[in-house]
Amino acid sequence: MPTLDAIVTELRAFTAERDWQQFHDPKNLAMLVASEAGELLAEYRWIPNTASDAHSTAADSRARITAEIGDVGIALVLLCDRIGVDLTKAMSDKLAVNRERYPPDKARGKSDRPKVDSNFVE
Amino acid sequence: MPTLDAIVTELRAFTAERDWQQFHDPKNLAMLVASEAGELLAEYRWIPNTASDAHSTAADSRARITAEIGDVGIALVLLCDRIGVDLTKAMSDKLAVNRERYPPDKARGKSDRPKVDSNFVE
Amino acid sequence: MPTLDAIVTELRAFTAERDWQQFHDPKNLAMLVASEAGELLAEYRWIPNTASDAHSTAADSRARITAEIGDVGIALVLLCDRIGVDLTKAMSDKLAVNRERYPPDKARGKSDRPKVDSNFVE
Amino acid sequence: MPTLDAIVTELRAFTAERDWQQFHDPKNLAMLVASEAGELLAEYRWIPNTASDAHSTAADSRARITAEIGDVGIALVLLCDRIGVDLTKAMSDKLAVNRERYPPDKARGKSDRPKVDSNFVE
Repeated sequence: MPTLDAIVTELRAFTAERDWQQFHDPKNLAMLVASEAGELLAEYRWIPNTASDAHSTAADSRARITAEIGDVGIALVLLCDRIGVDLTKAMSDKLAVNRERYPPDKARGKSDRPKVDSNFVE
Repeated sequence: MPTLDAIVTELRAFTAERDWQQFHDPKNLAMLVASEAGELLAEYRWIPNTASDAHSTAADSRARITAEIGDVGIALVLLCDRIGVDLTKAMSDKLAVNRERYPPDKARGKSDRPKVDSNFVE
Repeated sequence: MPTLDAIVTELRAFTAERDWQQFHDPKNLAMLVASEAGELLAEYRWIPNTASDAHSTAADSRARITAEIGDVGIALVLLCDRIGVDLTKAMSDKLAVNRERYPPDKARGKSDRPKVDSNFVE
Repeated sequence: MPTLDAIVTELRAFTAERDWQQFHDPKNLAMLVASEAGELLAEYRWIPNTASDAHSTAADSRARITAEIGDVGIALVLLCDRIGVDLTKAMSDKLAVNRERYPPDKARGKSDRPKVDSNFVE
């Protein structure tokens, strides 16, 4: 599978060839992330929780879902590259925060996930 | 920096320790992706395009933005792991589609990005 | 209950008193709609379909959900007022389109809602 | 222009004729609100703040934007009707909260809108 670094390199060439850097400021890219996430969401909006695993593996819907995941990932990497954030480090750092916020003994099996500190970004 | 594979391993342990697999069906995870993307979006909603690069580097807002990027990335990786999609392959495959859909000579410098084929997922 | 017109009047005063018109261009307001919709979404992300009616009536969650609905509505009305779109007319017009796109005999009981014409905005 | 009550009546008939009540639980409708908000957002994602008023009035984009506004409004009214929330009351109540949270003397001309009480739902 391609590495994230390889994707970044590909995306830079793709963007440059189309002269799209001018549109790719961080605000617009955050909008791209959110609108693509909305399209991914749309794939599941009429599917019950209990059918959503099967929906994710059925050939037609899987192809659409995978394409939408690709779009969200592309948008997120474009934003990271624009502002100089390392995506996997951001994920790892946030996971460390989440470990503190949701101690296993308090959070186990609970979906409400009460925030320890409401100033923290969820 | 941690690899994506290392993040997946960390996330599986994090989820299992909290017994949260029960909540992490694909539908709920798609909602997580979209709601976290909404929080990332909120960081930029009052910032003009022309100030959004500076906003992304100012210490306070950068910390919040990086945390939100981490959240979106975590949500996306959780979904990919649940349904067995390789994230970087999905991105690379979608990028290949986008190369076809937006030929450089037609798309150069244009923000409207007319779709070649409206059945394609944007 | 207040009319939509009364809400518009209230919102104009609220915005003017805070000198917030400068931030309320259509792009920013579309971001406001989407980020508030993301917060509404977050209220339901760990709730199964089958529990989501009860979740909507339980006192604590109902208060949060109602507040988020208020936020989305406010954002949408701010956008409509800014660009001179009549919200209820937009809804009624779109409903007329949907009646054509989803004929009862073809759409009855189907969640996939195949588009008659993919150029139509869903 | 049609009243909100008239829209509700129309929507109930539309839904019943298609036997779609079964899909319209509150969770799914919150997803509908968010995915439609994502489509509205997409209309503005490549448009600079400074061009977004003009984009909202140009014929082609105005038609698409108005249709997306209609979709978001429809989704929001469907949710309100399902869970028995009065939309304009929710907006008016939230506006009253916002008046307290953002006193004009502190909030005037500021886009950061610091929260008086972080437990409040934004």
